Amino acid sequence: MLGKCIENVRKTTPLVHNITNYVTVNDVANVLLACGGSPIMSDEPDDVVDITSICGGLNINIGTLNKSSIEAMFLAGKRANELDHKVLLDPVGAGASKLRTDTAVKLMDEVHFTVIRGNISEIKTLAQGSGTTKGVDADVADAVTEESLDSAVKFAKDFAKKSGSIVAITGAIDLVADADRCFVIRNGRPEMGRITGTGCQLSGMMTAFLVANPDNLLEGAAAAVCTMGLAGEIGWENMQDGDGNSTYRNRIIDAIYNMDGETLDKGAKYEVR
Amino acid sequence: MLGKCIENVRKTTPLVHNITNYVTVNDVANVLLACGGSPIMSDEPDDVVDITSICGGLNINIGTLNKSSIEAMFLAGKRANELDHKVLLDPVGAGASKLRTDTAVKLMDEVHFTVIRGNISEIKTLAQGSGTTKGVDADVADAVTEESLDSAVKFAKDFAKKSGSIVAITGAIDLVADADRCFVIRNGRPEMGRITGTGCQLSGMMTAFLVANPDNLLEGAAAAVCTMGLAGEIGWENMQDGDGNSTYRNRIIDAIYNMDGETLDKGAKYEVR
Amino acid sequence: MLGKCIENVRKTTPLVHNITNYVTVNDVANVLLACGGSPIMSDEPDDVVDITSICGGLNINIGTLNKSSIEAMFLAGKRANELDHKVLLDPVGAGASKLRTDTAVKLMDEVHFTVIRGNISEIKTLAQGSGTTKGVDADVADAVTEESLDSAVKFAKDFAKKSGSIVAITGAIDLVADADRCFVIRNGRPEMGRITGTGCQLSGMMTAFLVANPDNLLEGAAAAVCTMGLAGEIGWENMQDGDGNSTYRNRIIDAIYNMDGETLDKGAKYEVR
Repeated sequence: MLGKCIENVRKTTPLVHNITNYVTVNDVANVLLACGGSPIMSDEPDDVVDITSICGGLNINIGTLNKSSIEAMFLAGKRANELDHKVLLDPVGAGASKLRTDTAVKLMDEVHFTVIRGNISEIKTLAQGSGTTKGVDADVADAVTEESLDSAVKFAKDFAKKSGSIVAITGAIDLVADADRCFVIRNGRPEMGRITGTGCQLSGMMTAFLVANPDNLLEGAAAAVCTMGLAGEIGWENMQDGDGNSTYRNRIIDAIYNMDGETLDKGAKYEVR
Repeated sequence: MLGKCIENVRKTTPLVHNITNYVTVNDVANVLLACGGSPIMSDEPDDVVDITSICGGLNINIGTLNKSSIEAMFLAGKRANELDHKVLLDPVGAGASKLRTDTAVKLMDEVHFTVIRGNISEIKTLAQGSGTTKGVDADVADAVTEESLDSAVKFAKDFAKKSGSIVAITGAIDLVADADRCFVIRNGRPEMGRITGTGCQLSGMMTAFLVANPDNLLEGAAAAVCTMGLAGEIGWENMQDGDGNSTYRNRIIDAIYNMDGETLDKGAKYEVR
Repeated sequence: MLGKCIENVRKTTPLVHNITNYVTVNDVANVLLACGGSPIMSDEPDDVVDITSICGGLNINIGTLNKSSIEAMFLAGKRANELDHKVLLDPVGAGASKLRTDTAVKLMDEVHFTVIRGNISEIKTLAQGSGTTKGVDADVADAVTEESLDSAVKFAKDFAKKSGSIVAITGAIDLVADADRCFVIRNGRPEMGRITGTGCQLSGMMTAFLVANPDNLLEGAAAAVCTMGLAGEIGWENMQDGDGNSTYRNRIIDAIYNMDGETLDKGAKYEVR
């Protein structure tokens, strides 16, 4: 079933507008091309409304936010909402600075996000900080493990219900939840954390999956997570003596480039709770 | 003959100032180093006049333009013109937003470009939009194919004549034209479109070729196009099972690094019309 | 002894705040991860004070400075000084433009740097330009060679004494000096100059080495230089037919990823003068 989701991306070549950080932007673009999407980047307030209008999805990542790009995020997000585009928020570093936390919370207040994707720490920050989501119990462990899984799943569903967004929490175990269902995903490898930007790459790719699977958004988001994790597994199998994180980065993107629906269906490791 | 052009780059190590987008800037720098040039990047208005003054060429790419970098483009472009440097315009996304179209058109009005390089859609936008070039018949097909080739060649020459710039239109078939002659180039592979920034890379590299071949600008521009396309062919031959667009990106830059004049002369596929 | 320095990085995972150029930022992040550190990037004035506060070190690189990031450099640098964090300056292009020279000199006046790292031309510019360091004899050759070594070592020590910073001058022969001692390092390969950003990568990595080796800062800085150079040697040994600068970039980062203390101790080529 998830395999169908990546096939839909390849069939429809969704154009995704990215307002993303300059650290990992090249990888985000190449991952979008690898999965069958098409990337465009623009973060100038006078440019983003036009650009997002010709796209199907918008990926907002606050990793290297600045005053100008923050303004662009609000303008693009509101326009994307008007056009009923899919919109994703990647709140990089929420909790690490006041500006990042405030920006992410305010974005949640003024823009409707199809998906919010981050690590557990970022997502907890948003759950506690947002007016919209006041009342969500974020007293969950700082890592999603088998031991903390039940409470983490409940937290993800609760936050999804309050925010009206699909919530994707990525880590050793990944969760992708709406109010009712939560995909618990066990793909991926710990070495992926030694590459910069695998999270950013996932956010870009997930936006393409949302655009290509409008009638199955939860499955689409989960399929993107499985694709990334499975590519991490396949890429690792292809590592040679002397290879390290730079080659691993290339091999993961390569594995996404070569991923078809059948491979994804066979390799995806998930349960739905 | 084109082989001589890349040898001239390697002999003279032209220093190229790039005001380019942050998506593909690292690849632009590495491609410039691969072909024998030397890159420097600066997009701060208070910095660009000094920086462009010590270079031989200027590459302006509007891919992630912002208010500050736009100001820098005009300042650097005018200074480069005063110094008789080679200047290239890559109008990324012209036609996709008003800001991009307006910026590219205004740049053409106020800066003389040695070369304008883009895809057919971007170049048509400029041909229609620019006061300088009013009257060019841009009623040409949206892709340069064998069927549309005659009209595309005529369009490229007409636009070159009106604008006073060499016009490079890249796609499945590449055209590099001045008012009188048009190189029709058939190097390259369709998979290059699955890598972000091969066009941006070409623009950076082409600027180095212009600086190194001041008496044969048209040949220099065509040689850069052939080098990129041929590197795409050589890089593809070296692909292994499991490789994808990320590895392909590396192999193309590697192929440029290893390209000599003889290889280019043997592999370049072009006719002059 | 230097091997211990990289082991200390791997043991303590120092978090390094980078205000660095957008050309090589992705490689800087991956090199920091490769050596065992952890990168975070932020250059927005309203964000950097919070971000640098949670880090152990700050890497300031002026490669693509702009008005906003310059303001951020001063804010972050002063805050890092207050917190007694390790702070490194990479004065990319000092001497090439007035803005770059002035910014680097003013940074030296207002921020205390643990290390200043650049090429001989940049460091000479700072030695001549800074009020703090007035009187340093910068009448040294433009490249550190066996012939100019004695005067270059003296220059490095003098500048270190006047500035109160460790001075790292990288080139064919690398020098890492405080007022009393100078590591003369002969690792590395000339082909590293054909990759963009090996200097920027070194600056990021060196900041992590400083944080992890607070009681042996000079050794820590020298160990980072040896690690980079030795990785360049190991990476080159692994090159295959057809490989070029793009693959070489990956292999160098991979070699850092796989570097352990024993390998570094065996491969480091240095003398102390």
